[in-house]
Amino acid sequence: MLVIGAGKSTAILIDYLLAQAEVHDWQVVVADRDLDVARHRIDGKSRGTALEFDVADAAALEKLVKQADLVVSMLPAHMHLPVATACVNHSTHFVSASYVSPELRELHHAAERKEVTLLGEMGVDPGIDHMSAMARLDALRASNASIKAFETFTGGLVAPESDDNPWRYKFTWNPRNVVLAGQGGVKFKHNGRYKYIPYHKLFTRYEVVEIPEYGKFEGYPNRDSLKYRHHYDLFGIETIYRATLRRPGFCDAWNCLVQLGLTDDTETLEALGDMTYREFVNSYLWYDAAMSVELKLRAMLKLELNSPAFDKLQWLGLFEDRPIGLKEGTPAKVLQKLLEEKWPMGADDKDMIVMLHKYEYEIDGERWREQSSMVTKGSDSERTAMAKTVGLSVAISAKLVLTEQITQRGVVIPTTPLVYAPVLKELEQHGIAFTSQVERV
Amino acid sequence: MLVIGAGKSTAILIDYLLAQAEVHDWQVVVADRDLDVARHRIDGKSRGTALEFDVADAAALEKLVKQADLVVSMLPAHMHLPVATACVNHSTHFVSASYVSPELRELHHAAERKEVTLLGEMGVDPGIDHMSAMARLDALRASNASIKAFETFTGGLVAPESDDNPWRYKFTWNPRNVVLAGQGGVKFKHNGRYKYIPYHKLFTRYEVVEIPEYGKFEGYPNRDSLKYRHHYDLFGIETIYRATLRRPGFCDAWNCLVQLGLTDDTETLEALGDMTYREFVNSYLWYDAAMSVELKLRAMLKLELNSPAFDKLQWLGLFEDRPIGLKEGTPAKVLQKLLEEKWPMGADDKDMIVMLHKYEYEIDGERWREQSSMVTKGSDSERTAMAKTVGLSVAISAKLVLTEQITQRGVVIPTTPLVYAPVLKELEQHGIAFTSQVERV
Repeated sequence: MLVIGAGKSTAILIDYLLAQAEVHDWQVVVADRDLDVARHRIDGKSRGTALEFDVADAAALEKLVKQADLVVSMLPAHMHLPVATACVNHSTHFVSASYVSPELRELHHAAERKEVTLLGEMGVDPGIDHMSAMARLDALRASNASIKAFETFTGGLVAPESDDNPWRYKFTWNPRNVVLAGQGGVKFKHNGRYKYIPYHKLFTRYEVVEIPEYGKFEGYPNRDSLKYRHHYDLFGIETIYRATLRRPGFCDAWNCLVQLGLTDDTETLEALGDMTYREFVNSYLWYDAAMSVELKLRAMLKLELNSPAFDKLQWLGLFEDRPIGLKEGTPAKVLQKLLEEKWPMGADDKDMIVMLHKYEYEIDGERWREQSSMVTKGSDSERTAMAKTVGLSVAISAKLVLTEQITQRGVVIPTTPLVYAPVLKELEQHGIAFTSQVERV
Repeated sequence: MLVIGAGKSTAILIDYLLAQAEVHDWQVVVADRDLDVARHRIDGKSRGTALEFDVADAAALEKLVKQADLVVSMLPAHMHLPVATACVNHSTHFVSASYVSPELRELHHAAERKEVTLLGEMGVDPGIDHMSAMARLDALRASNASIKAFETFTGGLVAPESDDNPWRYKFTWNPRNVVLAGQGGVKFKHNGRYKYIPYHKLFTRYEVVEIPEYGKFEGYPNRDSLKYRHHYDLFGIETIYRATLRRPGFCDAWNCLVQLGLTDDTETLEALGDMTYREFVNSYLWYDAAMSVELKLRAMLKLELNSPAFDKLQWLGLFEDRPIGLKEGTPAKVLQKLLEEKWPMGADDKDMIVMLHKYEYEIDGERWREQSSMVTKGSDSERTAMAKTVGLSVAISAKLVLTEQITQRGVVIPTTPLVYAPVLKELEQHGIAFTSQVERV
């Protein structure tokens, strides 16, 4: 078995595979650009081999893939394609946690002919969301339920014990994606009506949800919820909505940044080298020699004196006359730099993955509302909730492919019972499980 | 002389050239895809020849350009390049009213070597704006003035006698450009500060200006005002601002369309074929079974009962349960279709070009504020203000090139006195002139 990429969120994945290697008499090769990183993951275990490897080295890639029975690719999403192509060539199975790109999907028929499984979207979001939702939707359909509404919410957040800043948020994943989230606008369906939200209104249109023991969250909608009608066979559905979770108050404050224009990633700022954060904010306000930057911002965004959103902006240091220290960049780059200073995960901080599905359905003329949620907390800065949920999903499914319990070939995502049932079962043994409440409407 | 394109706004251009052809013993070939259109423009005059011609026919283009001493290209902006390239090959001069594209600018050295003039940006905006501003800026600099601020405003509007709808606007030019105006955001400089406005705030940040006899206008900023520092040699300037003029009330109402998301041209609407205008608007509002579309819109946009902006939306018919009648498209396409029904120029309507420059400068320690404006009204639906200002600028400069009064070679825009002085002088004889007011600050 070959694991390519040994960075963040692979600790639990590789531990699991090394343990399974003992059981099934496998060898696990961990290949990374940085040999020390690969060695650290293997930690001297006899079933593991660490390798220095650059995915751009096509000859080395071919050789490694040829020797393997299965490749787990933990590379960034845009780097999977050459690996998957080599896998098809050498009849080697492939597992990844990333979205299946249109280019990767084109390998489907070739993979089928070669009897190769290219399993994608096998992480948490996408991954556990597909599996948990499809398990419940298939069960409901088997009970002759007519499904009227499906809403799904996921968030990578800080655990309550580390939730200690006014935004109630820290970067547990790619900061750039957080800054640019939702750009391009949103579409979904609500009670039979198509709904569109332009980007500049997105963070005013969140839905508040509550999870027992964990309290309230805000869910702002993801870009295209409509395409999940295809994935989940929900064509006639009246409401379909996918959203990202934040803690209450986040969206109002983030909306201020959007309204100002600070999340824009297209325009390059002039004379950025000399600019302070205060001047940066002032560039997005009108000119008035007599008014302070704070007052102009309050006036433009109509923020009251006691506005919690204003306090969050102030806490970020947006009004400080402190040099930004970037030579060139877009407003989004400036904002990301500031946020990375303000929202880092501390050494003792724990993260938390929260997932929530809401269903509405009719059985025998009665309408039901069901809410199902999963919360996983990290143990430490390596064994994060993200590393657990992604790593276990990938690792379990890799094992199931190699032990021929998953036998579907071609490009596969975990929306069929043959895939999701055994993976969910084992995830539950590791404490990754959903709890539900049902009520009659 | 070869004129390619005989559509809208070429009536006055071609009349002028045919009259000059009598004086200078020239022949004018008018080439258009539609032979009847070309014939109509020549109207039987002996100096003219009408030709059917498709610019995609490279061989025909080469032949026509080779026979000509000068080509006037009235094609859409993106179609000039092959014509200008042929002109360089055959040592034929070239005049157009469009912005000089980066690709066209690359012909500069080749044109210089061939002693060819490629004169661009020779219409109204760009064109008369360059010439009138540079004439004044050069005169001020010759008087040792230090120029502190330059703001320039242009609008293609309806003349007061045809100003009879609540928006005080009709389409006198490309509707698509009006619907998409400002997308991508804006940058300019105000009192030494760089200022950026994201698209969704653009129509709240207009400046009100007043022109004697014509009353008030709103100017919303154009995309990139900063690049005009290069064109006009204004590198140290404290304020530089270019804007588009509308009548008061327009921007507030247009801002409602922007806020809703109706000007977006990226997202394709689902099930558009069955949709009415009312349902279209409702797609951009939240779901609420008990509230009317009107009330939800008022609530989202915070519009009072007596809001003039709301009345303008209602006048457009946005709340009517009338089928849109488009099979597919973006919100911007739907909006354009509706606006083309509501804002057409009637057969008796007259248009109006309004241009205004504002200067601030210091001479001998005294600070002055100057405003200079030009208003040109159309005579009828063919001899529009647009046709006059664009046509005369192009025609006069074409004559000046052929009579060797303009001798600058290579790619030229009318920012040098050798070009703008004779053109402005003759435009003034045709009644296209600026009037100024100066006051000490």
